[in-house]
Amino acid sequence: MSLANALCRKPITRIENSGDGIEGDDLLAVEEPLEIRVLGRSVAVVMRTPGHDRELAAGFLVTEGLLRNRDDVLDLVRCQAGEAGSVATGKSAENVMDVLLAGGVAIDWTSLTRHVFTSSSCGICSKASIDAVRSQFAPIARPLRPRRRVLVTLPDQLRAQQAGFAASGGLHASALFDAVGTLEIVREDVGRHNALDKVIGHAFLAERLPLDGRILLVSGRVSFELMQKALAAGIPCVAAISAPTSAAVEFARESGQVLVGFLRGERMNVYAGTLTD
Amino acid sequence: MSLANALCRKPITRIENSGDGIEGDDLLAVEEPLEIRVLGRSVAVVMRTPGHDRELAAGFLVTEGLLRNRDDVLDLVRCQAGEAGSVATGKSAENVMDVLLAGGVAIDWTSLTRHVFTSSSCGICSKASIDAVRSQFAPIARPLRPRRRVLVTLPDQLRAQQAGFAASGGLHASALFDAVGTLEIVREDVGRHNALDKVIGHAFLAERLPLDGRILLVSGRVSFELMQKALAAGIPCVAAISAPTSAAVEFARESGQVLVGFLRGERMNVYAGTLTD
Repeated sequence: MSLANALCRKPITRIENSGDGIEGDDLLAVEEPLEIRVLGRSVAVVMRTPGHDRELAAGFLVTEGLLRNRDDVLDLVRCQAGEAGSVATGKSAENVMDVLLAGGVAIDWTSLTRHVFTSSSCGICSKASIDAVRSQFAPIARPLRPRRRVLVTLPDQLRAQQAGFAASGGLHASALFDAVGTLEIVREDVGRHNALDKVIGHAFLAERLPLDGRILLVSGRVSFELMQKALAAGIPCVAAISAPTSAAVEFARESGQVLVGFLRGERMNVYAGTLTD
Repeated sequence: MSLANALCRKPITRIENSGDGIEGDDLLAVEEPLEIRVLGRSVAVVMRTPGHDRELAAGFLVTEGLLRNRDDVLDLVRCQAGEAGSVATGKSAENVMDVLLAGGVAIDWTSLTRHVFTSSSCGICSKASIDAVRSQFAPIARPLRPRRRVLVTLPDQLRAQQAGFAASGGLHASALFDAVGTLEIVREDVGRHNALDKVIGHAFLAERLPLDGRILLVSGRVSFELMQKALAAGIPCVAAISAPTSAAVEFARESGQVLVGFLRGERMNVYAGTLTD
């Protein structure tokens, strides 16, 4: 992947064993805000690594339950500086993506209640509740029994593609493989959720959802929210280099997803589902 | 810290080199939703590790700019099952914290626009913008020049306290030290932001804000949002085991905060501010 926008150099003082500081510079993962709009309305501001912003906006809206069908989306466009109604000016205009919907498509704004706040003027907010965190997505329709011999090959394939992490130590990665272990797509981002949203947005825009028979590999830990996003895209198997949380395991079992953690060398822990050899 | 609620056991299949699965169990970091309310109104649902929920709710509201003074808070109470107006029932009631304010205290709900969505019924949302991500907090009033010899002692002190991480591999930690390196408080959570909110909430409830002269050490990477939360509590120095993002560095420089990354052994990178020996 291109790293032109994903990394930047900053001057730093590097202190080594001697205790003397050496002036130099360091490669950092870029983190900038992206405002996601639908029909001109602000839906969210996410802190993300620039690059693949169309995919990120699309994937975010799919995993939040706002977008379901590729045909519903006419286009995703970047705001222009000084555009009427835009608060963004100058460089910031690059950091606003607006989703244009096909005629007649309605958005269920209530599905956004997960990220909610309350104000007296805002009737929608009474729906905010713990229950709203629970998924609105159906369980996996076609469960997968992934092969152990395939799973063990995935971390090395991911590492070979993690150019950004290697350079900065600051980027998460999400990678999608088919059932025989062929890498289909990798995305990196400072936010683990964003990296996955970019993968899902890519598949959505290519009209490839649901992602039957696919295996998702993530570079870090697995939270409830990552499993929920994977389910939104129909991904039947999630594997991770590190630990899952309790809620991720419970969610995987309820959703019919395979969940593998601590995938390192020939070893792994199977937290949900069943493998074949 | 107590780990009674922070960890749980789940049955798993452990696959070793031979390829044969061994049935066993694994310690996992607990992740459950906490609904934070103010005067009965839902403000946010965060996925967190149970424990120190009062601190988390208080710290979240301080770092979101909703709470400023300890005297404004009458109490933080857990909802009761079946309570009038509560959507939570049974066990879920334990996962709702309500903040009771002192008489006459007004809340500036508009400061919540960072976590925003738009609905046609919701006038507040027009304020959602990238600018709203930028902090509403003043720069550090009393800058700190931390001692290098102090900083290098902090990671080992943190590791000795990270009981949850050692057991599960799934928890982030935030620790607060004074300027000579004495550990004051450590909190762990599946969410890095939550771990910091718990530290800040603890200090807020003890009427110890702003945290002049303190050093914050975090177990992972440093994002823009972590620096913003640290500034909300007046913390003049943030050190991290791993990398900061570009926005974290820019924010630290604008705010007069010291930011140290890759603090490992005798080595570190100084991204913002100046150390003394």
